[in-house]
Amino acid sequence: MAGTRTGVWLIGALGSISTTVIIGALALRKGLADPTGMVTAGSLFEGAPLARIEDLELGGCDIRQGSLMDTAAHLARETGIIRGDLLSEIRPDIEEMEPRISRGTSRNCGEAIEQLAGPRQDCLTSAREEIHRIRSQLSAFRTDRSLDSVVVVNLASTEPAIAPSPHHEDLASLEKCLDEDDAGAIRASTLYSYAAIREGCPVINFTPSQGALLPALVQLAADRGVPVMGNDGKTGETLVKSALAPMFSYRNLRVLSWEGFNILGNLDGRVLDHPLNKAAKIQTKDQVLSKILGYSPHSRVHIDYVPSLDDQKTAWDFIHFEGFLGARMSLQFTWQGYDSILAAPLILDLARLAELAWRRGESGLMPHLASYFKAPLGVEVFGLHEQYGMLVDYADRVRRDAESTRRRENRSGAATAMGAAAGTPGLGDPHRE
Amino acid sequence: MAGTRTGVWLIGALGSISTTVIIGALALRKGLADPTGMVTAGSLFEGAPLARIEDLELGGCDIRQGSLMDTAAHLARETGIIRGDLLSEIRPDIEEMEPRISRGTSRNCGEAIEQLAGPRQDCLTSAREEIHRIRSQLSAFRTDRSLDSVVVVNLASTEPAIAPSPHHEDLASLEKCLDEDDAGAIRASTLYSYAAIREGCPVINFTPSQGALLPALVQLAADRGVPVMGNDGKTGETLVKSALAPMFSYRNLRVLSWEGFNILGNLDGRVLDHPLNKAAKIQTKDQVLSKILGYSPHSRVHIDYVPSLDDQKTAWDFIHFEGFLGARMSLQFTWQGYDSILAAPLILDLARLAELAWRRGESGLMPHLASYFKAPLGVEVFGLHEQYGMLVDYADRVRRDAESTRRRENRSGAATAMGAAAGTPGLGDPHRE
Amino acid sequence: MAGTRTGVWLIGALGSISTTVIIGALALRKGLADPTGMVTAGSLFEGAPLARIEDLELGGCDIRQGSLMDTAAHLARETGIIRGDLLSEIRPDIEEMEPRISRGTSRNCGEAIEQLAGPRQDCLTSAREEIHRIRSQLSAFRTDRSLDSVVVVNLASTEPAIAPSPHHEDLASLEKCLDEDDAGAIRASTLYSYAAIREGCPVINFTPSQGALLPALVQLAADRGVPVMGNDGKTGETLVKSALAPMFSYRNLRVLSWEGFNILGNLDGRVLDHPLNKAAKIQTKDQVLSKILGYSPHSRVHIDYVPSLDDQKTAWDFIHFEGFLGARMSLQFTWQGYDSILAAPLILDLARLAELAWRRGESGLMPHLASYFKAPLGVEVFGLHEQYGMLVDYADRVRRDAESTRRRENRSGAATAMGAAAGTPGLGDPHRE
Amino acid sequence: MAGTRTGVWLIGALGSISTTVIIGALALRKGLADPTGMVTAGSLFEGAPLARIEDLELGGCDIRQGSLMDTAAHLARETGIIRGDLLSEIRPDIEEMEPRISRGTSRNCGEAIEQLAGPRQDCLTSAREEIHRIRSQLSAFRTDRSLDSVVVVNLASTEPAIAPSPHHEDLASLEKCLDEDDAGAIRASTLYSYAAIREGCPVINFTPSQGALLPALVQLAADRGVPVMGNDGKTGETLVKSALAPMFSYRNLRVLSWEGFNILGNLDGRVLDHPLNKAAKIQTKDQVLSKILGYSPHSRVHIDYVPSLDDQKTAWDFIHFEGFLGARMSLQFTWQGYDSILAAPLILDLARLAELAWRRGESGLMPHLASYFKAPLGVEVFGLHEQYGMLVDYADRVRRDAESTRRRENRSGAATAMGAAAGTPGLGDPHRE
Repeated sequence: MAGTRTGVWLIGALGSISTTVIIGALALRKGLADPTGMVTAGSLFEGAPLARIEDLELGGCDIRQGSLMDTAAHLARETGIIRGDLLSEIRPDIEEMEPRISRGTSRNCGEAIEQLAGPRQDCLTSAREEIHRIRSQLSAFRTDRSLDSVVVVNLASTEPAIAPSPHHEDLASLEKCLDEDDAGAIRASTLYSYAAIREGCPVINFTPSQGALLPALVQLAADRGVPVMGNDGKTGETLVKSALAPMFSYRNLRVLSWEGFNILGNLDGRVLDHPLNKAAKIQTKDQVLSKILGYSPHSRVHIDYVPSLDDQKTAWDFIHFEGFLGARMSLQFTWQGYDSILAAPLILDLARLAELAWRRGESGLMPHLASYFKAPLGVEVFGLHEQYGMLVDYADRVRRDAESTRRRENRSGAATAMGAAAGTPGLGDPHRE
Repeated sequence: MAGTRTGVWLIGALGSISTTVIIGALALRKGLADPTGMVTAGSLFEGAPLARIEDLELGGCDIRQGSLMDTAAHLARETGIIRGDLLSEIRPDIEEMEPRISRGTSRNCGEAIEQLAGPRQDCLTSAREEIHRIRSQLSAFRTDRSLDSVVVVNLASTEPAIAPSPHHEDLASLEKCLDEDDAGAIRASTLYSYAAIREGCPVINFTPSQGALLPALVQLAADRGVPVMGNDGKTGETLVKSALAPMFSYRNLRVLSWEGFNILGNLDGRVLDHPLNKAAKIQTKDQVLSKILGYSPHSRVHIDYVPSLDDQKTAWDFIHFEGFLGARMSLQFTWQGYDSILAAPLILDLARLAELAWRRGESGLMPHLASYFKAPLGVEVFGLHEQYGMLVDYADRVRRDAESTRRRENRSGAATAMGAAAGTPGLGDPHRE
Repeated sequence: MAGTRTGVWLIGALGSISTTVIIGALALRKGLADPTGMVTAGSLFEGAPLARIEDLELGGCDIRQGSLMDTAAHLARETGIIRGDLLSEIRPDIEEMEPRISRGTSRNCGEAIEQLAGPRQDCLTSAREEIHRIRSQLSAFRTDRSLDSVVVVNLASTEPAIAPSPHHEDLASLEKCLDEDDAGAIRASTLYSYAAIREGCPVINFTPSQGALLPALVQLAADRGVPVMGNDGKTGETLVKSALAPMFSYRNLRVLSWEGFNILGNLDGRVLDHPLNKAAKIQTKDQVLSKILGYSPHSRVHIDYVPSLDDQKTAWDFIHFEGFLGARMSLQFTWQGYDSILAAPLILDLARLAELAWRRGESGLMPHLASYFKAPLGVEVFGLHEQYGMLVDYADRVRRDAESTRRRENRSGAATAMGAAAGTPGLGDPHRE
Repeated sequence: MAGTRTGVWLIGALGSISTTVIIGALALRKGLADPTGMVTAGSLFEGAPLARIEDLELGGCDIRQGSLMDTAAHLARETGIIRGDLLSEIRPDIEEMEPRISRGTSRNCGEAIEQLAGPRQDCLTSAREEIHRIRSQLSAFRTDRSLDSVVVVNLASTEPAIAPSPHHEDLASLEKCLDEDDAGAIRASTLYSYAAIREGCPVINFTPSQGALLPALVQLAADRGVPVMGNDGKTGETLVKSALAPMFSYRNLRVLSWEGFNILGNLDGRVLDHPLNKAAKIQTKDQVLSKILGYSPHSRVHIDYVPSLDDQKTAWDFIHFEGFLGARMSLQFTWQGYDSILAAPLILDLARLAELAWRRGESGLMPHLASYFKAPLGVEVFGLHEQYGMLVDYADRVRRDAESTRRRENRSGAATAMGAAAGTPGLGDPHRE
C-alpha cells in the first residue's frame, strides 16, 4: 500500500535476528537484495494492499548495550551470512538507526537473561513505571518517524516458563498483578505487550515466552481492536517436522519415536543453555507432533548450545516408524540453516500482515498466521500444509475485499478515494487510548 | 462390502512385493497381522463400501520359475521383514496358492528382464497369442474362484522406456501394432493391460513401465467402462520428496539443487542396474520436483544396485536452497525402508479402490488415486498433501453416495436391496466382451 | 589350545549381550555360525595357543528372574538379530544352560537397577556374605564343569558413579569398607571382582561401573597373579570416534565441537535413562576425544532411551572443525548397530585373551587389550590404531613364545610336553586362595 | 630453513585450489592467518630444517585467461571461504603476482579441458616446442626471483585416463613418443613433468592425471636426482575412508558394500562431469578400500557436478557391514568440506617437503608422503594411520640428521657452517641439465 508509513518496533533489537531484519529491510529498500524467503513477496499476495517494504521504518529496544554495527559485523565475520560488501554499502543507514534503539527491560526474566543486560543504572522501581516507559518509547517512535502505525515484534531471548494462573485469565486480575508487581505472574514480555496493546500497536510474539500473550492480553487486544499473534516463530526443525509428520498419517504408518537434536551457537542458544529457559522452548516444540498424528509417539527434543556453530542451527531428527507386518523403518534428516536468515523475512512478513490486519479493522488473534508459529495461539491445526491453506484463504479474502473496494471507489469517483485513505486508522485513531 | 468376491491378479507374482502382498493378505485374513500401512484400513474410508480384505482372492503370473515359498523364505531369512513364526503359520495357505501362479510373458522387455525368465520352452509366436493366453488365465481365475471381479496389478520389473509414438494414441493404430507384432511399439505390459481391459478387469500399473497404460489403452478402458490407474507406485524417496518440496514454496525459499541417491538390492534393483530399464525409472521420479516447485532446480536421481541391501531401499537426498540475503542452506535426509513392506499395503488399497470404482461404474483414469503414484496419469497435482486431499474428497463422495443409497433402500424396502446388489457389475457384466 | 577347559562366568547373564554371547558360543560350537566380529578368530591370532571356542563353558548370574530363552526369543522376535531357525536348533542347549544362571546381587546399585531385581526374598545381610556367596558360585561352576579356569565378565547394568575415595586406593582400607558395609564406597561390581580375584579368576569389566576395578582391586589382582581389564566395552560410537579423531590431528585440522547423540532401547538404555547411571556412562565416553586430540573441543555426549529401537543403538555425531584460513567445515555420521551383536564377539575374545594371559602367568592390568575399552585402565593411548598396534605386538609376542616353547619341547622330547601342560595353572593352582 | 629461497610453480594457477594456496601463503607471510591444516606447521616437524613459509615464492601457469583476483573475488563472494577483509588487505600482493602466471598447455587433454582454454592464438606445433616453452618459463621464474629451487605442483583439471602402454615404461620409448607427438601416449601433464625434471625441479602431482608421473618419468627423476610424488591429493571422502576402513578390519567385521556419492560445483567438478575425465578420477578413489580391507566389497564412487555447491564438496558414504551371527549394520557419513581450503595447506606442505627432500639429495619417489595421496605411487600402504606413521618416521629421520649435522658443525667451527650451506644444491646445481 503506497504511502502507508508503518513502524516495526523490535524487542531485542541488537540480537542476530533483529539485526538481520534491519539489514534486510535496508538492503531491500536500496535494491541490494532479493526478498527470497518472504512469503508476502511471492505470488501469494500479489495484488493485496500490503504496506510496501520500502515504507517500513524500523526501531526497537534491547536490554544489552552495544550497537547494531557490532552485531552486523559479527554476523559478517563469523557466519558469513551478511556479505562484507553489502554491509559496507548500508553502513551509513545502519549507523543512522543506532539512536532509535532504546533501553529495554528484563524484569522477571531470570538469571540467564539478566546476565546479558549487565549492570543496570536505570532500574525502575515498578512494573507500572516500566510500562509507562515502553509506551513513551512507542509513542515517540510513532511521532518522530510520522508513522501511521507501529507493529511490535518480540524477538527477545526466551524467558523462563511461567506457571499458568487464574490471574492470567482476566484483565482485572492481570491489572492487579501489574499494580502489585507480582514477580511470579508477569514477565518483561507481559509488560511489552500490555504497553503495546494499550498504545494500539499490533503485537507479534516470535518467541516461546508465554508471558507475552496471556489470555487476558489477547482479550484486551480483542477489546481494543488490536490484532496480535504468536507464539514462537517456526523456522527450522519444527517447520520440517510439520511438513513431514502428516506423510506418516497419509500412509497409515505408525510413528514409534521421533527424536530431535538441535545444536546452535548464538545468543539465543546461550540463553537456552539455561535449564529454565530451555524448558520453555522445548514445550512449544514438543506438542506439534502429537497434534498432527493424533497420538503421542516417544519423542524428545534436545537443544544444545554449541558456540562454534554461531547462527548456523543444525538439527538431526530420527524418526522410527512401523509399517506393514510390523516391520520397522526409519527416516532421518539433518537441517543446516541460519537462524537469523530464516527468521528475518518472516518478521517482515508478519509486520506487513499485522499492519494489514490492523488497517482492515481485524482484532485479537490472527489464526491465518498459524503457519508462521510453532505454537499458534487459538489454532488447533498443526500440519504445515493446512496452515498454509489458511493463509491462502486469507490472501484470497483480502484480494477480493480490495477488489470490491476498488470497484466501489471507481463508481463513486476520485474524491472518495481520498476519504477511504483518511478512513484507515492512524495517528489519533480509536485503537489508541 | 461383505460378500463381494474380488480377485487380485498380480503380474510378477513371485517378486518380493507380490509375495508380501500375498503373505499380508493371508495374515490379515487370519488375524495374524495389523493393516498398518493400508490407507483403506484407516479412518479415512470408515463407512465406505469397500470389499473386505478377507474376501480378496489372490492369483497372478510370473516369467520366472520358482515358488512363492522360495521368495517368502528369502524375505524371512535375508531381510527379516517376514517373521519366521508368521511364515510357519501361513505356510499351508501359501502352498495352496502356488498353482494359481501362471506363466507370464517378457515379450519385448529387453535383455535384463529376459534373463530372469530363463530358457523358455513355450515361446509364443505372436502378440495376439500372448493376449489370448492372458485373457484365458484371467477368465479361468475368475471362474475357478467364483469372483465378481478381477483387478490386475502390474508389479513386474521395469521395462525399458518406450519411445512415444502416434501408434500409441489411438486404438486402431495400437491394434495394428498388435497384429503386426511391432516390437518397437509394444511391450509385455501393453499385452497384459490390453488383455485385462478387454476382459473387463481394472488395471493398476504400479511400475514405471509406460507401455502398460498407453493413451490408446486408457481410451479403451474409458470406452469399456473399466477404471485404470498408474504409473509407478510412490513408496519411498519420492513420497518424502512430494511431502517436503512444497515446504520450500510455502516459505518462498529457492531450491538450488536436489540430488537423490537410491541404493537397493532386490530383483527390482538388479533389473534397474541395466541402463535401459534405469532410464525408464528415473524419468518418472524426476519430474515430481519441477512440477511442485514451478521451476527446475539442478536435480539428478541415481539408482544403484547394492546386493547386500536386498529389499531395504536406502535413499540419501541432499537439498541445497537459498534464503534471505542470498544465504545458502541445506537439508539432507536418509530414508531406510523396506520396498516390499511399503508397497504391499498400497497394492491392497489400490485393489480395493479399483474394485470399488468399477462397482460404482467409474471408468478410465482414477485421478483420486494420484497420491499413490510417482507419475499419476492425467493429474497435474504433485504435492503429496493436495493429492491426499483428492483422496479425502473421493472418500467423502463415496460415503455420501453410500449413505443416500442406504436411505433410498430403506425407503423402498428390503426387496430392492437385493436388486441393487444384482445391479453391481459381476460375472457376465457388460464390461466384459 | 586344545583341551584347556575354560569357564566364562557372565554377570548380568540374562541381558541381551550375555544371551547373545551364549547363543553365539553354542552356534559356533555347532558350526551354525561364523566367528565374524571376533578378533581372535581372524588372522591376527593365527598360531597363538588360545583356548578353543568349543571348549568354552558358559555360566553366570543375574539379579533378575527370567530365562535365557525369554531373552533369546525377545531378540529373535523384536530385533531380528537372532534368526528364528538358529534359535530352534540350539534351543535344547540353551535350556540345558538355564540352571547354570545363579542369583546375582544389586547391592548399592541404586534405584534404577534395584527395580530390575524385583522383590528380593534372599536379601543377604552383609557385603561379606554376598562375597561368600559369589565365591561359592564360582567354585561350584569350576568343579561342576571340570574347568581349568574361570574368567568373570561383568555385563551388568551401569551402576551410579562412585566418588573417588582414599578407601579405594589400598587393600586394607577396602577390606575395612567391606567389613563395615560402607554403602558409599562399594558397589555390587566391587563385590563381584573381589570375590573373583580371591577365587583366582581373571576379571573383565565390560561396563563403565568404576567399582569393579578400583585401584585396590587391581593391586590385589597383581599380587595374586590374576589378570584383569576394563572399563566399558568399546562397541559403537566411541569406536568410530577413536578411529576418526586422529585424522584431524594428522591433518592439523582443529576440532571445534564434537557432539554425540546416542539413542537405544534395550534394558541397558532403560537403566541409563536414570540420571545417576547415565552420568557414570557419559564419563567414560567423554574423555576419549581430549586424550586423542591433546585439547578439549566443545563436546557433549547424550544417551537417550528410545524403547522402539530395542537393541539397535543409533548414534549421530556432528563434528565441526576449522581448516585453513579459518574456514569451518563439518563431518557427521550415523551409526546403526546392534549393541549385543557388536559386544558379544568381543566378550568371547576377551575371555580367550584373559585365559591366555592367566595361563601365561601375567597378572594385574592387561594394557594390550586397550582397543576393547572406552576407558582402558592404565593406558594413555586412545587412538584406535595405536591401541590395535598394542594388540598386534602382544599377538606377535605370544606367537614367538609359543614357537620357542615348541622348539624347546621338540628338543627335550615328548615327555616334557606333558610336563609343560602340567605347568599351566589349573585347579588347585597358586592363584587361588 | 632460513634463507632458502624456494619457488612453487603451480600448474592450473588460476583455479580455486591454486588461488587459495597463493592467498594463504601471502596471508601467512603477513601474519593475517594461522597455518591450520598444514601438517608441516604442527609439532610433527618441529626442529626440522624446512624452508620457511615466508620464503616461498609463488608462480605458475594456466590454460585459461583471467586473473587471480577474479578467482579470489569469486571465492570470497560465492563460497565465503576467503574473508572480504582479508582479501582487501592482500589485494596489492595478489595483483603484483598476476604477471607471474604464464600461459599453460592443454595438449591432448580432451574436449572438456580444451573448452576451458578458449580459442588459442599461440597453439604450438609440437610437444617438443611445448616442453621448450615450459622449461623457459621455469628457468625464467628461477632467475627472476633468485630462487634456490623450484617445486612444480600439478593442480590442473583431471585429464582423461591414458591407456597403459609399453611406451611409458622406459625413457627411450617415451622420448620417441615426444618426438613423434603421439597423442595417444602423452598428455599435457607428461610435458610439464618431463620439462620440470629435466629442469631439476621436484614434481608433485596433486591430480589423478596418470600422464604426469609415468614410470619412465619416475625413472628419469631418480636418475637425475629429482624427488617426485603423486597421485591425486587426498583431501575429503577418501581421507575419511582411509581413516575408517581399517576399523572394520580391526574388529573382524565384514564390509559388504561401501557406496560413495560426491557432489561438488567448482571447475574441477565441471571437468569431472565429462565421462572420460570422471573415469580417470574414480579409478584413483576406488582402489583404496580393497587395498585396506584385503578383499573387495561392493563399492561404487559417484562424482556429480552440482553448480550451486561451488567449492563445497559434499560426500555421503554408506557402509553396510556384517557382524556376529550374520547381523547387518550400517554406518553412514556426510562430509562437507571446502575443496580448496582442504587442499591448499597440503600443497604448501608438499612444496616444503619436496624442497627438503631435494636439498637432502633424495631422488625418485617419496613414499613417506603417501598420506597425502589417494593413489600414492610405489606404496602399498593405504590405511591413513600407517601412512601417517611413515611421515612420522621420516620427520624423525630428518630431525636426527639435522641434529648430527649441527653437532658436526659445532665441532668443526663456524667456518664450516658456511660451507655446508654452499653444499646445498642451488642455482647451477648438478640436478639441472
